[in-house]
Formats: sequence, C-alpha cells, structure tokens
Amino acid sequence: MPTFMGVHAGYADVTPRELAAALAADRACAAEEGVRFGRGWLDPGTGLMFRLVHGPDREAVVRAHERAGHPATGMYELPQ
Amino acid sequence: MPTFMGVHAGYADVTPRELAAALAADRACAAEEGVRFGRGWLDPGTGLMFRLVHGPDREAVVRAHERAGHPATGMYELPQ
Repeated sequence: MPTFMGVHAGYADVTPRELAAALAADRACAAEEGVRFGRGWLDPGTGLMFRLVHGPDREAVVRAHERAGHPATGMYELPQ
Repeated sequence: MPTFMGVHAGYADVTPRELAAALAADRACAAEEGVRFGRGWLDPGTGLMFRLVHGPDREAVVRAHERAGHPATGMYELPQ
C-alpha cells in the first residue's frame, strides 16, 4: 500500500484538546477510505505538521483529509 | 537534544549514487557540528526530501547542511 508524507499547515497555537479532536476526525474519515495514519510530527512554532499516511492511492488519502475538514497543504508519495 | 524535521528540495531525478554522495557529505559535516541524522523520506516525483535530524540547536543543524553544500528549504523544531 503506498505511503505518503502529508504536510499540514495551521496547527500553531492549537491546544492539545483541539489537536486530539482533529486527529480523531482524521482517523474516522480515514477508516472509511481505507487509509491508515502512521507517525506524525508537529512544529508548534510554525504550526506545520508532518504525518506519514498509508492508503490505496493519493486520491483516497487526499479525500480522507478533506472529509475530516482539514485538507493537506502537500501530499508527497514515498517509494516503498 | 532537540529534534528537527528538515525539508530539502531539488532531489528529483537524482541517481541513487548521487543521493548516497549527498547523504555522505551531510554525515561528514554533521559529526563536526554534533548533529545526528535520523530517518528520511524522499518523494522522487517532486524531489522533496524530509529528514529527521538531532542537534544541539537550530544553528548547528542549519550550519551542518550548509557546510555539506545543500542547505535545507525548511527546518522545523519538534517538541520532545
């Protein structure tokens, strides 16, 4: 299953509670698209988040994020 | 020791040999700056590379890349 690095902007000054809610929304939409999240990293200073995500194809991964209400700024496909 | 996510552009159409040479140059300069590289991911389509890097501070990490001849496009500090 292809792996992507998702880059997400706008997570500066987000509380742990807000971040947890965003991630929970992602996971709910991800399951419906056959998408699974891996490890993620957040730079609280710039609000940029990096997250590994596995899915059947780019469209499914992008769609899962859009359905969760926070589309990715960039989605980079990584060779296996 | 702080951890950063380094983002590097310009690795599209790079051969495995060229990539290995770039990474070796990074490692040589890194050791002199007290910097250590973690895992990295490359999207060959866009030429964007993401790499975890540990170092005493942002300046040392940025300097190690500059000395190796390929400064980072972005360097994002990640909380422990």
